[in-house]
Amino acid sequence: MEYRELKSLLDRNLHRIKTIGMHHEKITELRRLLNGGSGESGTDLAVEGMWALQKLLTAGLRIKAFIICPECIYSIEGIQLAEKMIVSAEEIYTVSKKVMEKLSGRDKPDGFITIAELQEYGERGLILPDRALVMVLDGLESPGNIGTILRSCDGAGVDAVLLCNMNVRMTHPKLIKASMGAVFRVPVVYFAEAEHCVKWLTSRDYQIYLADSAAVDGYTSISYENNTALVVGNERYGLSDIWYDPGPRLVSIPMHGLCDSLNVGVAASILAYTVIQQRQQG
Amino acid sequence: MEYRELKSLLDRNLHRIKTIGMHHEKITELRRLLNGGSGESGTDLAVEGMWALQKLLTAGLRIKAFIICPECIYSIEGIQLAEKMIVSAEEIYTVSKKVMEKLSGRDKPDGFITIAELQEYGERGLILPDRALVMVLDGLESPGNIGTILRSCDGAGVDAVLLCNMNVRMTHPKLIKASMGAVFRVPVVYFAEAEHCVKWLTSRDYQIYLADSAAVDGYTSISYENNTALVVGNERYGLSDIWYDPGPRLVSIPMHGLCDSLNVGVAASILAYTVIQQRQQG
Repeated sequence: MEYRELKSLLDRNLHRIKTIGMHHEKITELRRLLNGGSGESGTDLAVEGMWALQKLLTAGLRIKAFIICPECIYSIEGIQLAEKMIVSAEEIYTVSKKVMEKLSGRDKPDGFITIAELQEYGERGLILPDRALVMVLDGLESPGNIGTILRSCDGAGVDAVLLCNMNVRMTHPKLIKASMGAVFRVPVVYFAEAEHCVKWLTSRDYQIYLADSAAVDGYTSISYENNTALVVGNERYGLSDIWYDPGPRLVSIPMHGLCDSLNVGVAASILAYTVIQQRQQG
Repeated sequence: MEYRELKSLLDRNLHRIKTIGMHHEKITELRRLLNGGSGESGTDLAVEGMWALQKLLTAGLRIKAFIICPECIYSIEGIQLAEKMIVSAEEIYTVSKKVMEKLSGRDKPDGFITIAELQEYGERGLILPDRALVMVLDGLESPGNIGTILRSCDGAGVDAVLLCNMNVRMTHPKLIKASMGAVFRVPVVYFAEAEHCVKWLTSRDYQIYLADSAAVDGYTSISYENNTALVVGNERYGLSDIWYDPGPRLVSIPMHGLCDSLNVGVAASILAYTVIQQRQQG
């Protein structure tokens, strides 16, 4: 019965739907994106599955292409999501189960893949509230760490994430996965160089706090008033030298055991939640 | 010059050192461990590199075998470490550069691999202080997450980590790597079933706190006095039902954005540091 409803939905939209095979250029583009390559524009990303598509819709991203495999869809939720996607997507394609299984990274694909476009925020386009809290990632290398930090920043309510010295694209599949959809929502601004980011922050009256396990001040001893920037650095090499010029304050998360530091994703998350909790209680 | 010192060190200990090749049974054992298999005993682990070996020595683990490639060692630090390892190791083997390169996961191996033994703590062998803080991991699947949590527990000063419903061994190479050596130090106790762990905790007057993103009580609204157990669950399915029997309190870390929850490693770390900081300030 459900499948009949889906068929009727697709029939009603037949003029907008194209059935394509493995050798179609859209599939080639999709495979490149799913393998971590870049798309037409650097902000294109591919995501699979109902869960991620729900998040994309909630975040209101532009849906450039919707690829659906009707044979893989069995649930009412699937049909309802297909209906929403058909309204939102600029291009709609159906593929066979065989093609979907080749594209999918899963044992049992749920029939949905999408190409969406991340919103770009230039440094001027970003409008932040008073007493903003931003997280700066300097030279991070692991897509998983960056995704985890985005997830925590989304959760804590960090206003934006600023990136410098970054070779990982926000559209990297591992980053998207670790972010659990946060990459669709949290505003991200790129700075080629840390120096530029420092200037941006200081000209906007941000107090800058560097996470540094050797710092004297503990992270809970500080009153994070006004505009606050938390800065974490590369997994192995830490922060670029420029951050240690006068201005920023160093804060440490105490280490009581054998290890010298925390995982950078954990450290960033602890700091972000500390600022937010302190402000809500203060 | 340095190499001459190393040669003299090895010559002095010649009676204890065996030179072995790729087909020696010790190498077979080592490769199995490095690939995530289990050793003679379930607590054997293999670690590579000077950094990890320093941590092993500091933690005081039993060193069952030390495999050294003299041709790979160039620094004074390397020779000093070799000296310490020769004193501590029960068996010592030298291998050629070719063998070391085949064993190593690195571009440039630094010449050191070790088989050590993790300390086992039975539930009765574990002696904990007053107002102890323990972290309970219920059914976690990702070796990386477990390793990251151990690293945070080591940093925060958590007294022990209790494991239930766990299929990942503490000797898994990814876990060891993510733990940055914390797995060598933090006491870990296994419980086959969560029910057994609940009994262990309640009979010792632990107040149990479950991390649950749907909970009403925020994690900072609670006073973590007396013996405290923090419990986090499986990455996808959360906690076993038994935890929701009367007794434990649910605590949430507020989620202000698109995501429903934090990465489990991040959540565990935030909770652990919150308890420790609250106690130090209170």
